[in-house]
Amino acid sequence: MSKWIWYYGDFEVYHSLKLHARRDEFGHNFPPFWRLDDCWHNVRFRKEVELQTPEEITVSAHGVGNVEIDGRRHALDEPLLLTQGKHGIMVHVLNPDGLPCIYVKGKTVVSDETWLVNSYGREWVNAGSNALYLEKSVNPQEFGFSYEEIVPVQKNNVDGGILYDFGRETFAKLYVEIQDGEMDIFYGETKEEALDGRNSYLRAHIFPQSGICSRQELEKAPGRVSQPGQGNLETAYGDLKCGQEIPARAFRYLYVVSAPEQTYCLRAYHEYLPLKRRGSFRCSDEQINKIWDTAAYTFHLNSREFFLDGIKRDRWVWSGDAYQSYLVNRYLFFDADICKRTILALRGKEPVEKHINTIMDYSFYWLMSIYDYYEMTGDTEFVRRIYPKMVSLMDFCLSRLDADGFAAQVGDDWVFVDWAEMDKEGAVCAEQMLLARSLEAMAKCSQVIGQSCDDYDKAFVQLREKINRFFWSEEKGAFIDSFASGKENVTRHANIFALLFGYADAAQQEKIIKNVLQNDAVLQIRTPYFKFYELEAMCLMGNQEKVTQRIQDYWGSMLEAGATTFWEEYTPMLPWDGQLAMYGDKYGKSLCHAWGASPIYLLGRYYMGVRPTQPGYKAFEVMPNAGGLDWFQGTVPVGEGSVFVHMQPEVLEVCADVGGGVLLWKGERFPIKKNEVIRLPR
Amino acid sequence: MSKWIWYYGDFEVYHSLKLHARRDEFGHNFPPFWRLDDCWHNVRFRKEVELQTPEEITVSAHGVGNVEIDGRRHALDEPLLLTQGKHGIMVHVLNPDGLPCIYVKGKTVVSDETWLVNSYGREWVNAGSNALYLEKSVNPQEFGFSYEEIVPVQKNNVDGGILYDFGRETFAKLYVEIQDGEMDIFYGETKEEALDGRNSYLRAHIFPQSGICSRQELEKAPGRVSQPGQGNLETAYGDLKCGQEIPARAFRYLYVVSAPEQTYCLRAYHEYLPLKRRGSFRCSDEQINKIWDTAAYTFHLNSREFFLDGIKRDRWVWSGDAYQSYLVNRYLFFDADICKRTILALRGKEPVEKHINTIMDYSFYWLMSIYDYYEMTGDTEFVRRIYPKMVSLMDFCLSRLDADGFAAQVGDDWVFVDWAEMDKEGAVCAEQMLLARSLEAMAKCSQVIGQSCDDYDKAFVQLREKINRFFWSEEKGAFIDSFASGKENVTRHANIFALLFGYADAAQQEKIIKNVLQNDAVLQIRTPYFKFYELEAMCLMGNQEKVTQRIQDYWGSMLEAGATTFWEEYTPMLPWDGQLAMYGDKYGKSLCHAWGASPIYLLGRYYMGVRPTQPGYKAFEVMPNAGGLDWFQGTVPVGEGSVFVHMQPEVLEVCADVGGGVLLWKGERFPIKKNEVIRLPR
Repeated sequence: MSKWIWYYGDFEVYHSLKLHARRDEFGHNFPPFWRLDDCWHNVRFRKEVELQTPEEITVSAHGVGNVEIDGRRHALDEPLLLTQGKHGIMVHVLNPDGLPCIYVKGKTVVSDETWLVNSYGREWVNAGSNALYLEKSVNPQEFGFSYEEIVPVQKNNVDGGILYDFGRETFAKLYVEIQDGEMDIFYGETKEEALDGRNSYLRAHIFPQSGICSRQELEKAPGRVSQPGQGNLETAYGDLKCGQEIPARAFRYLYVVSAPEQTYCLRAYHEYLPLKRRGSFRCSDEQINKIWDTAAYTFHLNSREFFLDGIKRDRWVWSGDAYQSYLVNRYLFFDADICKRTILALRGKEPVEKHINTIMDYSFYWLMSIYDYYEMTGDTEFVRRIYPKMVSLMDFCLSRLDADGFAAQVGDDWVFVDWAEMDKEGAVCAEQMLLARSLEAMAKCSQVIGQSCDDYDKAFVQLREKINRFFWSEEKGAFIDSFASGKENVTRHANIFALLFGYADAAQQEKIIKNVLQNDAVLQIRTPYFKFYELEAMCLMGNQEKVTQRIQDYWGSMLEAGATTFWEEYTPMLPWDGQLAMYGDKYGKSLCHAWGASPIYLLGRYYMGVRPTQPGYKAFEVMPNAGGLDWFQGTVPVGEGSVFVHMQPEVLEVCADVGGGVLLWKGERFPIKKNEVIRLPR
Repeated sequence: MSKWIWYYGDFEVYHSLKLHARRDEFGHNFPPFWRLDDCWHNVRFRKEVELQTPEEITVSAHGVGNVEIDGRRHALDEPLLLTQGKHGIMVHVLNPDGLPCIYVKGKTVVSDETWLVNSYGREWVNAGSNALYLEKSVNPQEFGFSYEEIVPVQKNNVDGGILYDFGRETFAKLYVEIQDGEMDIFYGETKEEALDGRNSYLRAHIFPQSGICSRQELEKAPGRVSQPGQGNLETAYGDLKCGQEIPARAFRYLYVVSAPEQTYCLRAYHEYLPLKRRGSFRCSDEQINKIWDTAAYTFHLNSREFFLDGIKRDRWVWSGDAYQSYLVNRYLFFDADICKRTILALRGKEPVEKHINTIMDYSFYWLMSIYDYYEMTGDTEFVRRIYPKMVSLMDFCLSRLDADGFAAQVGDDWVFVDWAEMDKEGAVCAEQMLLARSLEAMAKCSQVIGQSCDDYDKAFVQLREKINRFFWSEEKGAFIDSFASGKENVTRHANIFALLFGYADAAQQEKIIKNVLQNDAVLQIRTPYFKFYELEAMCLMGNQEKVTQRIQDYWGSMLEAGATTFWEEYTPMLPWDGQLAMYGDKYGKSLCHAWGASPIYLLGRYYMGVRPTQPGYKAFEVMPNAGGLDWFQGTVPVGEGSVFVHMQPEVLEVCADVGGGVLLWKGERFPIKKNEVIRLPR
């Protein structure tokens, strides 16, 4: 089957560049503060074929170039006859401002990943492709979103304007047609934001006919678009000729201010990726069900070209945020492609000059994510392809270690860890934990592709020993943030990592639980981002019942506060009007942030209890934990198959449509046979 | 004064990418077979200012982004008030498919090279700019060519078509308007090529109205465009609404084939850079005058965004070709900017993975060109800026030396030297000469910017010794091509370099002249490319009279053969119909090739005898040599000034409008005082 092919990884780099050009707020654009690479623009593709019978092929491309057959050049887009026998085909494509890609259509000669591609550098690599681009008519330079018209659930006159409420947070293109005059549209994740024109993040000022005839553009886009005249908000006049399209942005509310006598037409089209939910969860607690649904919706809105942080702000790809999304994805979409896309986009091209997103920890999460991805998929090929970029990033990290061999800030490196007060003087403990985990990932990935892992293993062992020696405080019974400052400050972060990564021995674990996790004197985690790890650590220690309570308290009260998607940050006790500000902006907080979706991961991983024990779920474990719930039931993807876990008040039922599973229940192991239900007393 | 600014070097990289997408032949496009880099697309600019009085500024950009003043972001294109006192201005621009650049207009706050720019890599560098882009309305993403309508000098009906002869080679856009039907245009550097549709390199097939309304485009372009209805070839109907524009290509002849009853309008617009000729030359030999004029015209046609090889084919930027153009340029335009543009475009970005243009010698010429450029301009700043890229290219070259320490082919490196039969087994002597010269250039450039040159000096001395030891054959009295083959083959190339670079001692020089230069048994140089060096070596040895003869013979007979511009290759004795083919194509030879312009260099450098003895012509030498001519007179640029040399039958007159010169005549030195004529008996 023919498909569009390109230089491997360049589809992601190209769309990352386009995506990152789209953040806007307060009427200005806001480019990221890190290097964005572009695809190679001059590439060549080749393939040796041997034909049993003559065959006609046509080579199409985005870009200019030629087709060389057995050393003779021909034009693109022309039928070319290949005679019986062996032929060498080479396609040269130069696309100065886009993604060079080709589509070869013949009876047996077709463009696919078996073609080799080269950017006139040293290596020929197998071409990249994507299941979204199998048809010649679909252009890989346009990301293949789907569209669906959405309508507001409410409309109110407010202060001379009209406030439309779409019922919940969404991400949608607007199509606007006005007869004359000008008009303003203010977007709001909340009613307050939409009505506060001066402070609303997103707005549009519409002049009549200033847009291009973009209705046609919209209709050309993949996915369903409703016909003119159907389901529109306001149809002042039926004949839509030429209007303006406003690229998709986040909102629940739209506040439209125009001259009183003005007539306009406004339509909204939800822009999304049609990802299939393969995971599910239902339980006896309706609030938790609503939390799961809201988390799934939040996560879907942020799963686009890549895993985004938030759909209003930043709409960027952040490695630390993405790392959690990879994990949530396992229990919801189980979509491998979006993981690969995100990993490739984040890393960009050589040479490495700064940390990923400029953040030291985010380089480490990127390295860790490759092994996690391998664990999920068993995709050795991807590891092989990305491995050289892992090595160069790790080389970069190791080249910056301080005299003690720790990763400390160099230049303007951003040492983030979390939005939390922390002692960041000199080497920071949480960063060393992540570096150690990255070294483990390097060693494991080296093994996966048959490379020696000795150096990474050795570095890991040395670092672990040093972390203990420099950061463990017997007096505090905890890992301290920094030894350089002499303050011996304890925060939850490094200690949570120690539990999660297994970097604390039994005695240390006990102390950490007592002195840190269960110690209210230690600063609470305030972001869903780090709550992810905190609750995971609690689950790992078997405290699911407490985690249930925390989920109810934290996510539940967000819902009670009116959230239709989960937020970037949340402090339960604050009044509503103190919730929305962040980064010094009145509505600066993102109210639809991917890292708010962690309950999906926690419930799948530690309640339904499913995890792979061999790469790609060739073997997997199910170790359910009721977590204090009367009952729950749900599905967890395990590679191509699924496992169904039904925790009833009296009985536990587990069933999978693939083999390889084992149920762990009350200290016993029960092999899960394909399509056979295991029933055990609870 | 405000000007457009961008990431230093990216204007060149961007336009190089666009330029290299334009080669077409036989109806298909032909991208170069080397890596083409793109500009950075996400950059930021900054400047600290201190204002005596408040001032309003406006920041415009190509791309999206914002203006941050004292940490607060504002939209682009809006008037912003700066109060009295100090301010930090930071402009963020992301242009996903173009060149990010900004234009800041205020009373005192203006965008210029004092702004710093950063691509979110490690370094902040001073911004790049170009004198072509001082007006906000002129877009740096469009190269600023000028246009002038040209008309054919002859028109003939041939075989049902019409052959237009423009009198001489040119490079022009066509504007075509047809009423109905289709038509073909075949381009020809010769009549034969235009009339041989199957074999002509360049052609266009015109469908009615298939083009965009590009008349307007043309009129928006910088430079003069004649009004519709004036000076057109065929005006079938006066009302030009919508036609097709064919981007500029090389031709002297156009052969138009259309239906007999068809009416059409065809206009041609010469596309050029308005470079000023600062050098001139006239002498007693009319043929040499015509050669100088034709060389100047040839050279001008190839002096565009960058120095091209040829305007029909390849229309690419080649480092070896460019190296000669830098030298010719000194005696014609003395345009520093086109040198810098070409040097920056050729080198592209890090990391180095292949030789420049994939050719080993072309990496060496690139390195050598920087010192040559410095010698011409005294532009220390440029050396400072390009130096890191010199180092990384030299590192690349040195990393590939063989066990003997010689530069030999690695992988698919192209060892070119010249289109000539040569023994290229193992290390090739000419390449080592160029490597040695590059090490010299590295050492000198290091000194220019105050870096240590010891390593390069040492490597140079070692290499020179080894070249002598391995390649000098006492038996042959010459440098041999290769010692690895055991063939002891002698060609002119390495021996010419030995003379030019001073790598032969007096005894060796004598032998080389006798055994190689004056030895007809050694294969003759057939390309104007290497004739450049051969004739230069002869001049250096004082054989100007012979060179005069060679110029008359070689270039003169090209003119007699009908050349209106000088060719890529020429063999005097061949009949006309054997002259045009090359690379296996019937009209494959380029008939307008920059490397054919060397007489300008030879006459300026070795007849008028002008050369800098201090960088930037702070001091210069004039050592005229009549070369057998009765008289000559001419002007040679020397930095900002010019020197005028008039060799009369009885008297020599020299005058300069700047100081610093010294006349060398019959073994004596005469200081040239500003604006004072020196007259000496010949």
